[in-house]
Amino acid sequence: MKIIEGGVTAAKGFEAASTAAGIKYKNRTDMALVYSASPCKAAGAFTTNVVKAAPVKWDRQVVDSDAPVHVVVVNSGIANACTGAEGMAVCQATADAAGDIFGVDPAGVLIGSTGVIGMQIPVDRIIGGLKSLAEKKGHSLEHGTDAAKAIMTTDTHKKEIAVTFTCEDGTEVTLGGMAKGSGMIHPNMCTMLSYLTTDANICKKALQKALSDDIVDTYNMISVDGDTSTNDTVLLLANGEAGNTKITVDSPDYVTFTKALRTVTEYLAKQLAGDGEGATALFEVTVKGAVTKEQARTLARSVICSNLTKTAIAGHDANWGRILCAMGYSGAEFDPEKVDLFFVSEAGELQIMKDGVGTDYSEEKATEILAQPVVTAIADIKMGEETATAWGCDLTHEYVAINADYRS
Amino acid sequence: MKIIEGGVTAAKGFEAASTAAGIKYKNRTDMALVYSASPCKAAGAFTTNVVKAAPVKWDRQVVDSDAPVHVVVVNSGIANACTGAEGMAVCQATADAAGDIFGVDPAGVLIGSTGVIGMQIPVDRIIGGLKSLAEKKGHSLEHGTDAAKAIMTTDTHKKEIAVTFTCEDGTEVTLGGMAKGSGMIHPNMCTMLSYLTTDANICKKALQKALSDDIVDTYNMISVDGDTSTNDTVLLLANGEAGNTKITVDSPDYVTFTKALRTVTEYLAKQLAGDGEGATALFEVTVKGAVTKEQARTLARSVICSNLTKTAIAGHDANWGRILCAMGYSGAEFDPEKVDLFFVSEAGELQIMKDGVGTDYSEEKATEILAQPVVTAIADIKMGEETATAWGCDLTHEYVAINADYRS
Repeated sequence: MKIIEGGVTAAKGFEAASTAAGIKYKNRTDMALVYSASPCKAAGAFTTNVVKAAPVKWDRQVVDSDAPVHVVVVNSGIANACTGAEGMAVCQATADAAGDIFGVDPAGVLIGSTGVIGMQIPVDRIIGGLKSLAEKKGHSLEHGTDAAKAIMTTDTHKKEIAVTFTCEDGTEVTLGGMAKGSGMIHPNMCTMLSYLTTDANICKKALQKALSDDIVDTYNMISVDGDTSTNDTVLLLANGEAGNTKITVDSPDYVTFTKALRTVTEYLAKQLAGDGEGATALFEVTVKGAVTKEQARTLARSVICSNLTKTAIAGHDANWGRILCAMGYSGAEFDPEKVDLFFVSEAGELQIMKDGVGTDYSEEKATEILAQPVVTAIADIKMGEETATAWGCDLTHEYVAINADYRS
Repeated sequence: MKIIEGGVTAAKGFEAASTAAGIKYKNRTDMALVYSASPCKAAGAFTTNVVKAAPVKWDRQVVDSDAPVHVVVVNSGIANACTGAEGMAVCQATADAAGDIFGVDPAGVLIGSTGVIGMQIPVDRIIGGLKSLAEKKGHSLEHGTDAAKAIMTTDTHKKEIAVTFTCEDGTEVTLGGMAKGSGMIHPNMCTMLSYLTTDANICKKALQKALSDDIVDTYNMISVDGDTSTNDTVLLLANGEAGNTKITVDSPDYVTFTKALRTVTEYLAKQLAGDGEGATALFEVTVKGAVTKEQARTLARSVICSNLTKTAIAGHDANWGRILCAMGYSGAEFDPEKVDLFFVSEAGELQIMKDGVGTDYSEEKATEILAQPVVTAIADIKMGEETATAWGCDLTHEYVAINADYRS
């Protein structure tokens, strides 16, 4: 497997485009297209929030159907969440217009939205945008990058990656993708969106299983502020253009495919966490020595979600008591008096707790380690063999500034 | 029932004191005593965190035993959490010293600590402090206030209240109490502590039941930062000096007693939430129309715990999408398209959402309502008859400043 340049247009047959449709933002692109002339199979994973945005309900339907997918349309600026029947009508109108313009079945048009909750999307601007996207679409890496930029809200940089791998039959397959901000909400803008494309020939069941299994350890292990959005969406499209022998759940290529997928999603997940609103550091927490994977995940997630831990990281403070405290209220059982804790970064490694009690570590060294842009805490609970990692970020003044100011 | 002046010394037979024992703070009091010459029955409620501080383990034992309680000793500055066997030895030494000094059974001495995690308490200073407390103790309201001040950490003001009520036999009973900061952590200082005293003659079973039932709707419905401390403790002592006919779970006076208790705990809980670290507003969330009380509690708690909602309140932004979003990921089921939402404060009342969709409300009026020091959001989910209220605070720059700075 090899990491290559590119994102959603890296795989054969995928095109992309962006345009400034003027949906809410001024002077920037706010619509993105992902297109494949060959029909795609689609897998999806969506927010667990009871409050689901209209495009989430729409996409769920499309993914569950067998409609061939050619078009994904995403807008930033307005989330189309809490918009009632009118919001669903906007999705229908968008799909109908895309069907006309691209000559495809509207039932297979996927839609993504991110931005302000509760505001209706002006359909005429979406239709205008679709026409422009149809004219501008192309297969170059720049086209992919343009799409990755158009879906950003409070993200400070675009997020994309692609990898290739060789199947047992010698065919080269490419998988790429883009994502936007888990820096969740600029007044009301909530959402993690990720669009992944591959030219692999793979059956729909294997595609969905690969995605569903993967997100448990990637997109579901990141947190910026603990607020699960109404719009979270991950889509994985496969158009089969690589021409490899079809991958099924039982074929050896399936394992290779899942590894390629993990490389892409883990990279994007870490980018999302590290670019959380106001974040100055990526905070990685690994829990090892757990009895079950789920126990390890629960403990790691609890630490990256703790405001007190996050502010300590922002202050470069080796506040191990807060980490143990956050593990303690996670709901997972463990013996606090067995826990070892280490801080690791480019500046070195330090054991700061042994058997639940602080070691005689150097506060100076600890602060140096914690001042790096990527900080890892490793907690060993010494009960079993399972490990899990979660990714978050520090909680800074900037987070409050971004989110306290009036929607503007 | 009548609210009267005072706190832990309001009830007959209770004395209190404070002293500057120099445990960690300089130039302020850091030890408090609550004392009753008559033996007390004690009820308690403690942190659910798996990581429990030594005094929590100690007090649990005392409350579960039938040892008569005369003395509660509380220190601020060091939490005696994550301190291993040495931490438990400190509790034993404290109880032994208190037993000697006050001439009581050490097995009935209750201990509370709040402050830095992972640091050992210097026992000699505790013993010095106990001697000073024994000399200074008294029954005046000022003695109670002094104790309420000594247990503060990042609290900006002391918290105390007392009420009286008349039993069916005409006897007047008093119940008072003090609490400290749910403004949870000044570098490592985590803890909500509350000490309640009554001169009621009440059986131990009724005392514990009253407390256990009460905290579900008071101390368990507040949040400052979602971080459940290792030291949270609520103790309720009854010395029987009022001389009323003994209250049991079945006597009519029990209901009056629980109402008096609720008045005290709800007041203190709201004070704790409103005085959260960096807070400028008390944020009250009421969920009504729920099928079960637990559904209402879950939804209300989820909203007051949401960083995005809390920053919106700090910014006086009527960001109703965030409130609906936080309800959506609470884990409780409801129909988002049935929810009505209102904002209420001294500046007026405004319906901002009807059936899950925003109304055409005045943003200006909404901002005016949200700029008050006490802001209430009322969500009606129109499913049933149950209601619950949770209390939190806004999330401000100041919270980050308090918690990001190095332990000093």
